[in-house]
Amino acid sequence: MSKSSTVFARQTPAKDRHETTGGLVIRAETLTIETHQRVELVDLTEAIAKLVEGSGVDEGLISVWSMHTTCAVFINENQTALHADIKSFLEQAVSRDGKWMHNDPEHSDCDRNNADAHLRAMLLGHSMTLQITGAELVLGQWQRVIAAELDGPRTRTFRVQIQGLQIHGPNRRAE
Amino acid sequence: MSKSSTVFARQTPAKDRHETTGGLVIRAETLTIETHQRVELVDLTEAIAKLVEGSGVDEGLISVWSMHTTCAVFINENQTALHADIKSFLEQAVSRDGKWMHNDPEHSDCDRNNADAHLRAMLLGHSMTLQITGAELVLGQWQRVIAAELDGPRTRTFRVQIQGLQIHGPNRRAE
Amino acid sequence: MSKSSTVFARQTPAKDRHETTGGLVIRAETLTIETHQRVELVDLTEAIAKLVEGSGVDEGLISVWSMHTTCAVFINENQTALHADIKSFLEQAVSRDGKWMHNDPEHSDCDRNNADAHLRAMLLGHSMTLQITGAELVLGQWQRVIAAELDGPRTRTFRVQIQGLQIHGPNRRAE
Repeated sequence: MSKSSTVFARQTPAKDRHETTGGLVIRAETLTIETHQRVELVDLTEAIAKLVEGSGVDEGLISVWSMHTTCAVFINENQTALHADIKSFLEQAVSRDGKWMHNDPEHSDCDRNNADAHLRAMLLGHSMTLQITGAELVLGQWQRVIAAELDGPRTRTFRVQIQGLQIHGPNRRAE
Repeated sequence: MSKSSTVFARQTPAKDRHETTGGLVIRAETLTIETHQRVELVDLTEAIAKLVEGSGVDEGLISVWSMHTTCAVFINENQTALHADIKSFLEQAVSRDGKWMHNDPEHSDCDRNNADAHLRAMLLGHSMTLQITGAELVLGQWQRVIAAELDGPRTRTFRVQIQGLQIHGPNRRAE
Repeated sequence: MSKSSTVFARQTPAKDRHETTGGLVIRAETLTIETHQRVELVDLTEAIAKLVEGSGVDEGLISVWSMHTTCAVFINENQTALHADIKSFLEQAVSRDGKWMHNDPEHSDCDRNNADAHLRAMLLGHSMTLQITGAELVLGQWQRVIAAELDGPRTRTFRVQIQGLQIHGPNRRAE
């Protein structure tokens, strides 16, 4: 069996976008973070809220997409103690030192020894689609958008696309 | 280290919305449920289907977002036996009485002792984006949208946003 | 307690769609696969990329929805060794032979003995919403859209909806 992974290759890189028709706006940008540990949780909420603010979209959706297999995004509280628990849980749920074939040179050409990171990211998920209303993110009081670095330290990128209505200005509707 | 969690505070509460441009409709509402047990599964399907019906949207997307960190939404069958299995599985996967720092007053100012609820919700996910076609939800025959109360009893709210095309009336397309 | 599951029944089947207003396109199609093992991972990336290509949408979102409770979709690398690890992990996480009530004729009218498949699908998730930009999917280099058959062999269908802007032709914007 092949030791290699199939690669997804776009023909052109995904550029920043700002398209609009009849009040509908689609806008996309890239968010980059630097991580410093193998497993690290990074709060993306403020950065995403800023992109929403800058988009001019009043009502719509925002997709946040991790461009990596070993980096996830999820919702939870941003508390140091809870983040320690999340890391403990991930260690319990997926053993770093399990007999994973992805870490075995006989079966895999990946030398990162990171099967655990793949499995942990799969559990947490690689993307989410949030709502925008009144030109702000819809999030509960304790909810934060958290990136999970699972095989760092690395530079990690997230593609963010906003799709919605720009109501301010000439298209503004009475409320 | 701080025992507190960072709070997400919108400047204005997320209100009901109904915006439209050139046949595109964006409409958002809040769904509220009361739960009666600490861990409880509530079938939201009919309530969501009713919101779709009332929206006038024929083709589009509907985002369902739990506004809470310890309340999830997921897809599964609605059967009493299976729901008992889901609860057993959540107990196996995340121990209620593990040595979680979030439950330790030395490290956390949260007095709900609910680290398990945070971790279980993280596994199930806090949101989903469904399709609408022919003015109805797209769901498989056995699929139901299920809310997981993981730290009840509580009042729980879900923000629902519908984004799509209204084809009936003057904008109706030939099929 | 009832042994039966509640069924979701659309009034009309979800048909293929192509609707448009002012440059906005909503298009939906069904993707079908045949699986050959009880637990099998199937790479859907090329099939989904082809639907994007055929849609004429330049910027937008694409929702991929498994129409089944025991068939999931998730993101990961497409490597034989890693896929073996994913299957091992699912076996570790949810025991096939656990004392699940869904498999017990005393409590359930399901004779597929597939509680494990329900729980595993719940962990992986039944849907995802991806981004489209420049008329191509947004995916990281190693990311693939993977379907997880968890109770095969079966015929499995996925509903795919694309919502976005068609910019080529008269609506083409300068970049």
